[in-house]
Amino acid sequence: MILIGLDPGLQTTGWGIIVAEGNRLRHVANGRVTSRTADPLALRLVAIHDGLASVIARHAPVSAAVEETFVNTNPQSTLKLGQARGVVMLVAALAGLEVAEYATRFVKKAIVGTGSADKAQVRAMVERLLPGCVVDGEDSADALAVAICHAHMATHRRLVA
Amino acid sequence: MILIGLDPGLQTTGWGIIVAEGNRLRHVANGRVTSRTADPLALRLVAIHDGLASVIARHAPVSAAVEETFVNTNPQSTLKLGQARGVVMLVAALAGLEVAEYATRFVKKAIVGTGSADKAQVRAMVERLLPGCVVDGEDSADALAVAICHAHMATHRRLVA
Repeated sequence: MILIGLDPGLQTTGWGIIVAEGNRLRHVANGRVTSRTADPLALRLVAIHDGLASVIARHAPVSAAVEETFVNTNPQSTLKLGQARGVVMLVAALAGLEVAEYATRFVKKAIVGTGSADKAQVRAMVERLLPGCVVDGEDSADALAVAICHAHMATHRRLVA
Repeated sequence: MILIGLDPGLQTTGWGIIVAEGNRLRHVANGRVTSRTADPLALRLVAIHDGLASVIARHAPVSAAVEETFVNTNPQSTLKLGQARGVVMLVAALAGLEVAEYATRFVKKAIVGTGSADKAQVRAMVERLLPGCVVDGEDSADALAVAICHAHMATHRRLVA
C-alpha cells in the first residue's frame, strides 16, 4: 500500500511517500512544494496544486494523511494556513485518494511516544523508522511522520476488524 | 466583459455572474454552491470545487473577484473559511481567470456608500444596480456585490490608464 503524508503550508508544503507492507514500512521519496511570497495568492495556490498533483501522479499513492493544523493565535496566519490546507486536501481528493486527518499531538505520540515531542525528535524517529531515508527538511519530516502514523492506524484497523 | 464574484464559505459559497459593458452592468446569473456538514472535509472541498468549476464552464467569465475574508475571532471558524477560500480561489485560477481580492468594507463602501452597511442594504443596492436580478440569498448578494465592485474598479483602471 503506497501512502502519502502531507504537512500543509502556504510557503512550504512537505510531502512524504512510504510503502506499507503489513508491519514493514519503506521510504520511497519526500520533498517540499513551495510557493513564492511575492506572487498573488491565487498563483501561490496554483503552485501548491500543480506541485502536489505531479507528486501524486508520479508515485500513485492510494491513501493520503494530512496533519490537522495547529490553530495559531494569529488569525491572519490561521487563514493563510487554512487556504493552503484546503488546496492540499482538495488535490488529494480530486486524485481519488482517501484523505485522513490526524492531530499533530496524535502523530507525535504515535511516532515518538509523547505528544509534546519537538521537531528534532520527530525527524530522528522518522529516520530510524525509515532506514536509508534522507529527509528534505522539517516539513518533509512532519509529512513522513503523518504517513507513518497513517500506516500504523491502517494496520491497527485491520487487526481490529 | 463577463465577471464572476465569489463569497467563499465551507457550507455555502455564493457566486454571481455579471456582464460589464463600459459603465453598464447586466445581471446574468447567481446562486450558491453548498457542501454537506456531515461529509468529511475533503469531500466538502471537492463539492465546492466541482460546483464552481461547472458554473465557470457554463458562463465563461474572464475575471474573478473574491471577498477578502473577515477574520473571525474564532480560530476554528477562520480555519474552515480559509480552507473553503483557498479552494474557491484555486478553481478560478485553474480556469485561467485573473483573481482579484477586495476587502468586505471596501465592497460595501463601493456599493452602498458606507463600509458599515448591513447585509439587507447590500442586497437592496445589488437589486437596484442590476435591474431584474432575483438574488438567491445573502451569500449570492455578497457575491454579486463584489462582482459589481470589480467592474467599477476595472472601469476606473481604464479611465486612469
